[in-house]
Amino acid sequence: MPKLTHVQLKVPYLILIGDMGDATYAKTGFGIVQWRPDLVAGQLRFPGSEIDMGVPDMTVQEAVEAGVKSLIIGVAPIGGVVPDSWWTIIEDAARAGLDIVCGLHFKLAEFPAVVAAAKSSGARLIDVRNPPVNLPVGTGIKRSGKRVLMVGTDCAIGKKYSALALNEAMRNTGMSSTFRATGQTGIMLAGEGIPIDAVVADFISGAAELISPDNDDDHWDVIEGQGSLFHPGYSGVSLGLLHGSQPDAFVLCHDATRTAISGWEHYPLPSVQECIDQHVLAGSRTNPDIRCVGISVNTSQLPADERSDYLAGLSEETGLPCVDPLIDGCGAIVEHIKQLYPKR
Amino acid sequence: MPKLTHVQLKVPYLILIGDMGDATYAKTGFGIVQWRPDLVAGQLRFPGSEIDMGVPDMTVQEAVEAGVKSLIIGVAPIGGVVPDSWWTIIEDAARAGLDIVCGLHFKLAEFPAVVAAAKSSGARLIDVRNPPVNLPVGTGIKRSGKRVLMVGTDCAIGKKYSALALNEAMRNTGMSSTFRATGQTGIMLAGEGIPIDAVVADFISGAAELISPDNDDDHWDVIEGQGSLFHPGYSGVSLGLLHGSQPDAFVLCHDATRTAISGWEHYPLPSVQECIDQHVLAGSRTNPDIRCVGISVNTSQLPADERSDYLAGLSEETGLPCVDPLIDGCGAIVEHIKQLYPKR
Repeated sequence: MPKLTHVQLKVPYLILIGDMGDATYAKTGFGIVQWRPDLVAGQLRFPGSEIDMGVPDMTVQEAVEAGVKSLIIGVAPIGGVVPDSWWTIIEDAARAGLDIVCGLHFKLAEFPAVVAAAKSSGARLIDVRNPPVNLPVGTGIKRSGKRVLMVGTDCAIGKKYSALALNEAMRNTGMSSTFRATGQTGIMLAGEGIPIDAVVADFISGAAELISPDNDDDHWDVIEGQGSLFHPGYSGVSLGLLHGSQPDAFVLCHDATRTAISGWEHYPLPSVQECIDQHVLAGSRTNPDIRCVGISVNTSQLPADERSDYLAGLSEETGLPCVDPLIDGCGAIVEHIKQLYPKR
Repeated sequence: MPKLTHVQLKVPYLILIGDMGDATYAKTGFGIVQWRPDLVAGQLRFPGSEIDMGVPDMTVQEAVEAGVKSLIIGVAPIGGVVPDSWWTIIEDAARAGLDIVCGLHFKLAEFPAVVAAAKSSGARLIDVRNPPVNLPVGTGIKRSGKRVLMVGTDCAIGKKYSALALNEAMRNTGMSSTFRATGQTGIMLAGEGIPIDAVVADFISGAAELISPDNDDDHWDVIEGQGSLFHPGYSGVSLGLLHGSQPDAFVLCHDATRTAISGWEHYPLPSVQECIDQHVLAGSRTNPDIRCVGISVNTSQLPADERSDYLAGLSEETGLPCVDPLIDGCGAIVEHIKQLYPKR
């Protein structure tokens, strides 16, 4: 059996977000700053950048002086390429001895100037989106242990954050659980996983099966989601991950004010209920007991005084605990899970 | 924009099926013999082989003497590898100057002895399952022209055959149509296409969009299907292909006597109606007008006197034309399509 993708990064990090104008596509950077602020020394932004991760601005030179060991490319734009103008900076960082860490679809080895710069200093080029070879086809055979998968009405809507927050909340109440990474940022945080959107299409569910192997009956794998069943670009990844994960439970991730697929504005977001129903329908193929156990909503764009009414209304409508994980945490969802799946 | 995968094979062919015991997994060989018998000189079987494609048996030496130019690996087993014992024969063929044509997930270049043998004779090593690089992410933007996609209750259930037969029937009535290949055998037959199950997962629907580009309003792309939405191993490929194809219409392919997913016997086949309903539900995301226009059934395992009752019953139940394309042709489905989509 192939092993998962493993990465071991040298700390601390400088995170490159350049002139990225939309925080949605700087989610790698934001994810690392949110979950491992202790490892982040600074951010590298270009003049005119409109987003700010709230950590010190640094040039490559300043980072070297501050003892930074890795430059992490902190963006994930549609199509997965970085603008040409960024490569000079990346090359400088490699020449200065910083490991370059990248989770996009291309490989760093495709850029000869960066390869040469890294060679001259001994820096490492680390491609995180590098799935294992010889992946198996999914078997669909039931595995032991319990699984909860994050799914979403869209991409970049809080699935990774929700998984990390839910895993933390579970462990805080003494449950046995493991965060399972399926994307670049999740793998950087966890140190292992499989970048599920980078595997060859025939092996999506097979890779998903490897990510959450057999486990103790009361153990929960909290699986990071990818894409959306409703996404015109990425739905295949989402369905393969759903079938391969065989989740007993799923948490639906949503944004209270988003009305269309981000970057695909001609596609309206599905309703929360529609999204729950289609996940139950599709997911029941490999786990007939699948159910939605909670809704995790980004309410940051709602007026503060509408937030709790919104969540209460959604909870009333669906009969499920609804939280903004950044504000409320995931405790309410964990309590619901404990009631539904009492420890044996 | 990347171009499709193109292949140009030298004729005639010798088709290697070795000791494959299950015709389901020799579908590449059977597909070529069925659709281009004029190009096939013979089959290469090992002693004890239980299947027969009905063409002359030949050794490599006999094939050379008969003027054969290409050895086609005619099998597609689960997981996509050929048994170790076959490689001596493949090496012999390459050394004798036959091009080696392979549509499996590995690359011929990974086998040094075959590479050396081909080099010594000047033979070509042709990997058909070789998707274009730099594929785009699917846009979901509506394209002009009409599309009909083959879908199935399972893999290896007649989707390619049905697409070829439907395309032929359309052209025979004077309609404008094109067969669009999404798999290895289809690409060998058509000379171009994209092996959709071999693309990186994030680009499945983007590849599907390339396969059936904008066209005249009355032109039909007849798109080869892959996998099944209900398949625990391959469903992601099927959903991405469905979303990227944006089909106006689909033909459901089924086998009258199959009760479980072939090779995944713990998974029962979905019912025909369930399969239609879930394709309409999922497919309506990128084409709200999607509908099922017919059912193409392999009835070869039914007793001859039950065949027409079976098809009539299914037609009654679903309100759709039901044919065994090998026996009845696809004329009834074409007539239904012409009624539903009158020429402007």
